[in-house]
Amino acid sequence: MEKDIIAFTRGVPPSESFPLESLITCAQQVIHVDGARILQYGSGAGYHPLCDHIAAQYQVQADRVLIGQGSLQLLDHLCRVMLKQGDRVFIEQPTYDRTITLFKRAGAELVGFHLIDGQTDIDQIKNVLAQSPPPRFFYVIPDFQNPGGSTMSLDNRRELVALSQHFGFTIIEDSPYRQLRYSGQQIPSLFELAPEDVIHMSSFSKLISPGLRTGYMILNNGMAEDVIRFATDTYISPSMLDQAIVHEFLQMGLLNDHINNLKSIFFPRLQALLKTLEESLFEFGVWTKPQGGYYVGFFIGQQVKTPQLSNAGKFGLALTDGSGFFIDDNQRFLRLPFCALSEKTIVEGVHRLRNYLTS
Amino acid sequence: MEKDIIAFTRGVPPSESFPLESLITCAQQVIHVDGARILQYGSGAGYHPLCDHIAAQYQVQADRVLIGQGSLQLLDHLCRVMLKQGDRVFIEQPTYDRTITLFKRAGAELVGFHLIDGQTDIDQIKNVLAQSPPPRFFYVIPDFQNPGGSTMSLDNRRELVALSQHFGFTIIEDSPYRQLRYSGQQIPSLFELAPEDVIHMSSFSKLISPGLRTGYMILNNGMAEDVIRFATDTYISPSMLDQAIVHEFLQMGLLNDHINNLKSIFFPRLQALLKTLEESLFEFGVWTKPQGGYYVGFFIGQQVKTPQLSNAGKFGLALTDGSGFFIDDNQRFLRLPFCALSEKTIVEGVHRLRNYLTS
Repeated sequence: MEKDIIAFTRGVPPSESFPLESLITCAQQVIHVDGARILQYGSGAGYHPLCDHIAAQYQVQADRVLIGQGSLQLLDHLCRVMLKQGDRVFIEQPTYDRTITLFKRAGAELVGFHLIDGQTDIDQIKNVLAQSPPPRFFYVIPDFQNPGGSTMSLDNRRELVALSQHFGFTIIEDSPYRQLRYSGQQIPSLFELAPEDVIHMSSFSKLISPGLRTGYMILNNGMAEDVIRFATDTYISPSMLDQAIVHEFLQMGLLNDHINNLKSIFFPRLQALLKTLEESLFEFGVWTKPQGGYYVGFFIGQQVKTPQLSNAGKFGLALTDGSGFFIDDNQRFLRLPFCALSEKTIVEGVHRLRNYLTS
Repeated sequence: MEKDIIAFTRGVPPSESFPLESLITCAQQVIHVDGARILQYGSGAGYHPLCDHIAAQYQVQADRVLIGQGSLQLLDHLCRVMLKQGDRVFIEQPTYDRTITLFKRAGAELVGFHLIDGQTDIDQIKNVLAQSPPPRFFYVIPDFQNPGGSTMSLDNRRELVALSQHFGFTIIEDSPYRQLRYSGQQIPSLFELAPEDVIHMSSFSKLISPGLRTGYMILNNGMAEDVIRFATDTYISPSMLDQAIVHEFLQMGLLNDHINNLKSIFFPRLQALLKTLEESLFEFGVWTKPQGGYYVGFFIGQQVKTPQLSNAGKFGLALTDGSGFFIDDNQRFLRLPFCALSEKTIVEGVHRLRNYLTS
């Protein structure tokens, strides 16, 4: 292990967690029973039985559900339909680097709000709203944030929803990790606080398999028709087979046990990471203590010289460029994904991180 | 059957042609053998073994191959990366309605060239090129065109390639029907005439299953890297499972027999359509005599009053709006897809079409 690079890079599930046998059964079953539909062109909105399932889960009309090749693709549609060049989009800082790319590509003017102890600063947001035009969207990841790992408090959620209703902007809630809570109590989603207004995104990538590329979006009433038509114009329909397999997995009642299994793998990894950080790096930075999800966000302490990312390899590490999670090019943040690494590798990885940071 | 609507609308394969049992076998096999890779995030360019297979087939480097959720989606990437607002794009008229939508959405200025006996008028193209800026792209469907059914002659192909090289525009060759030739001799593709310059698009939708959403594009050397990065930024990776199933189907050597089976279903349907048109409608229009593919293009004769599309239902027909295949709103064209209709239904459908046209 000493010589292999330890990768604190992408937020991917461990391949050994994929429910191979169940997915083989599901694939067989759906092709056998519903092959004539699944192998044909379908609706741009997605495979109807899965749309219906998600609609029932979120207690919305099925015509507000859009399923596609991962939720990022759906966010791209939303941007293309709803954003004009120069429209403002508010984001948390740090936030998911790929959405920053998408928003920039759509011509958005991004305004970032630093998370303080995992919370957005409502007073700062009010100040910005008092002095300049409201955004079209405020994109947030309230549960076990990517990349920070923090959870937005209920008060923060309520205040944000109230602001969105007062100033007429739309919250996009990206919540792929919500069901991976390892400790603490579930907090209502922003969507649950304002189900007619908030756009909610999620995915089966972190719950079943990313390769099945099945993400979804609950659109709000004013936007669903246009965004779904846009999706249809872009690719006619998303993969029917992938969605049918996911639907079968849900219908067979396999998801809850599988999520419990994932938690039993991931929670000890998180605990190992937090314990080793405490033992080895408490002088060199501060970090979040996530209650779920995939990531610990590490903020390099003032006393540490900004390390050169290109040097990480010399210390046996691969790290994601932390500045990608910010619009103001912050070099002093590290995202530490822990789900795909064994506890032993995590401990060794943190030791290497200490050497890297103190070199 | 008398009361049911006969749909000459979408170009979809008959569901009974899907190789269900083979696809179940392929799905089982690939999840079993390569599940750790297939169920994980992959490359934005596609599933590497399938990229390699396609690259070998077309004798190009694998880094020129982009696979995605249907070739339309890939054309959308190409437009977004390569077209600026107001860039010109030349198209055949009629042409595939969904690509007209995509090009318009990308802000292209479309210039259409009417097909005359299935051929583009090279002199007219030269005239336009002499008087105005060359296009960025010329989009063509040379084999069994959608919606016309015609095949571009070898001379026409050569002249078009020569023009593209002289004037510096890029030909996009969309060729999903090429392997479905029922009669006549195969003609070299435009890609084969200029493999470094022409962008070639195709798909397994018409050869195996549309629901698997596996299309591909052979990009030319200057564009591949940017377009593939754009795809990655849009959805990380396309469905790995779908592509792995397609790859397994090819590896098992099942495609040739399956295509022969499809031809044995589709060719009699085309023959029934052409025979019945000749018997029933020779006074009322002219139509193509395709050597392959999915469609017969029907041009309503001058002596026939332009029928109201909304009346088709009264005659037991569903028809696609022919004007969607033109940029100049031609109301006197009908696309007649025949692959998904039985011979009996086709005969009855043409009789109804006669009543509709002569009402």
